[in-house]
Amino acid sequence: MEVKVSMSYLDDEKYSVKNASDNELIIDMYAKEKKKNLSPMELLLSAITTCAAVEVVSMIKKRKRDFNDIKAESTGVRADSHPMYYKQINVMYEIYSSDLKDNEAERFISLALTKYCSVGSSIRKDTKVNHSFKIIRD
Amino acid sequence: MEVKVSMSYLDDEKYSVKNASDNELIIDMYAKEKKKNLSPMELLLSAITTCAAVEVVSMIKKRKRDFNDIKAESTGVRADSHPMYYKQINVMYEIYSSDLKDNEAERFISLALTKYCSVGSSIRKDTKVNHSFKIIRD
Repeated sequence: MEVKVSMSYLDDEKYSVKNASDNELIIDMYAKEKKKNLSPMELLLSAITTCAAVEVVSMIKKRKRDFNDIKAESTGVRADSHPMYYKQINVMYEIYSSDLKDNEAERFISLALTKYCSVGSSIRKDTKVNHSFKIIRD
Repeated sequence: MEVKVSMSYLDDEKYSVKNASDNELIIDMYAKEKKKNLSPMELLLSAITTCAAVEVVSMIKKRKRDFNDIKAESTGVRADSHPMYYKQINVMYEIYSSDLKDNEAERFISLALTKYCSVGSSIRKDTKVNHSFKIIRD
């Protein structure tokens, strides 16, 4: 199974990427003041967070638990010297459900990050991926 | 050095992510007909392609070579069974320059992908990252 993207140059720190369906993504590496788009390392962190979230939601629904919402806050800790790869990734999910159990959430998130999510399994083995969660019963 | 993103749920296969500067990215996993945004695995491929391109352009300019444009076509070959990680990534750059030499392009791209690009060094060691290039002299 193949994934394809095409990249075009917009300026030294700004690029456009299109997928096979011609959907466009703009990426920039500007400093905060000028920044309009995510950077490559922010994309990687976003990719693992959402990829696992899709799997978590799917497992919650398969288990026929109530599901209202899911949010996440993720941080990636980079190496101090080049190449500044992710030494550690921390993903915290907030799941809004009236009846999801703690041990179910723990198992679903763990399975999603380590087993089902293709992005999670594409990163280096010595990157420590930590997860945590809160279940909000509202 | 820490990178942070926040994720919100839009629907089971569509998510919004914001970085620390509040720049937004929409990610979806829809099938081609419905698709408007890149998927997580497309984001990973886009991230490595652009991250290395930034470094390549920087090296071309430091070397004071002519630089007019850079494009790329990247493919990622996924494992056949879950988790469908990238077994192989192929990046082909087209560099528009009147005087960049082949051995310089080869060295810059190789250094960018293997050494300078943080996304490249964040992926698993057994993912084979191949590169190729064309220099266009127009």
